[in-house]
Amino acid sequence: MEKRTELYRGKAKTVFTTDNPERLILQFRNDTSAFDGEKVEQLDRKGMVNNKFNNFIMAKLEASGIPTQLDKVLSDTETLVKKLAMIPVECVIRNYAAGSLVRRLGVTEGQELNPPTFEQFLKNDALHDPMINESLAISFGWATAEQLAQMKELTFKVNDVLKKLFDDAGMLLVDFKLEFGVDGDGNIVLGDEFSPDGCRLWDKETRKKLDKDRFRQGLGGVVEAYEEVAARLGVPL
Amino acid sequence: MEKRTELYRGKAKTVFTTDNPERLILQFRNDTSAFDGEKVEQLDRKGMVNNKFNNFIMAKLEASGIPTQLDKVLSDTETLVKKLAMIPVECVIRNYAAGSLVRRLGVTEGQELNPPTFEQFLKNDALHDPMINESLAISFGWATAEQLAQMKELTFKVNDVLKKLFDDAGMLLVDFKLEFGVDGDGNIVLGDEFSPDGCRLWDKETRKKLDKDRFRQGLGGVVEAYEEVAARLGVPL
Repeated sequence: MEKRTELYRGKAKTVFTTDNPERLILQFRNDTSAFDGEKVEQLDRKGMVNNKFNNFIMAKLEASGIPTQLDKVLSDTETLVKKLAMIPVECVIRNYAAGSLVRRLGVTEGQELNPPTFEQFLKNDALHDPMINESLAISFGWATAEQLAQMKELTFKVNDVLKKLFDDAGMLLVDFKLEFGVDGDGNIVLGDEFSPDGCRLWDKETRKKLDKDRFRQGLGGVVEAYEEVAARLGVPL
Repeated sequence: MEKRTELYRGKAKTVFTTDNPERLILQFRNDTSAFDGEKVEQLDRKGMVNNKFNNFIMAKLEASGIPTQLDKVLSDTETLVKKLAMIPVECVIRNYAAGSLVRRLGVTEGQELNPPTFEQFLKNDALHDPMINESLAISFGWATAEQLAQMKELTFKVNDVLKKLFDDAGMLLVDFKLEFGVDGDGNIVLGDEFSPDGCRLWDKETRKKLDKDRFRQGLGGVVEAYEEVAARLGVPL
């Protein structure tokens, strides 16, 4: 399967069309960005690590009954995926308070959230991905009530599967963001990616950050941390 | 019933205890504030107009089966109310897009929202009343799932009653904010106030603003607009 035209260039991935109208190619780049693209750097090996990490996680989720867009790995940085009509509503679950939640709500970083919280954000860089809710998504036509209900249910399923996966490898899944799309049959399918770029992972004992906060906060050792996460999970790099 | 000690001084009202531990006195002041208290002015007659307006609306809602904290009017600017344990979650319904929604989501002012939208905000001046949702409110203990469900249901009931009331008087109820509390029996009761300070009202034909946006936007004629709204509804001032 060959890449044809570039369909969309995101901050860390490029999406290409293929000869098959139902398949796209995701190319994971080394670009690493934060603060709505204000801070951007190239980090060696990141595209490769995230591609392999994402494929490992998506396969685990698929095996747990969660429909994903994964089709097959094409190269170190490229994966063939099902074409989805993406829904511009990002779904976030938090098991521990961190990041924007701490700033917005004045709560303590690291506080365990019980039950885990669920938030929705509009995917829109120009507006800085504002928080929304189901009511707004429905009234503005970003998703239907049925789609939102399925996305929420699937996001909690993903949390159940991955919290255990990371816990077994000595890590806390602090929070994560998912994006969904609709396939040709109208089904809600997990799209985009799951990697340390879009979640927070802390070492269970030391609470050392093993995710993109190392980049945001200038802590260094970004890709090394991602590789450590991969090694602990047994992701072949 | 006499005022005893000052319990809480808000931006536009002061709350006093009374001899009866189950009753409080709300005193409506002339203070008018916007932008989290950055812009503050004294507007003659505003306390009186809002007190009478609020009592008129609360009586209408009570007659429609919505429990409110209203007990009885004490003076031009003071009202005796049931004591409630206030829930720090503000409930907002919007029938038309305006204000913060337009800035946050990049939508067009005046666009009709179908269905009307429902949002929740944490009542916290220091944090600038951040948007929250039910999941966050439950996990942080601001309200229970049952309380939030009742608050939402009551807010939509209020919208049904007041949209018609204002429409019959030639006005569009653009949006409004409600606050609820819990009474001694554990029931959810509408508290705080309903006045042009906490809602948006536009003339149905000209879309002239008849609410606190006149103050926020420096349009002048603030209290005159509130008095016009009262006159159209038949509120005795």
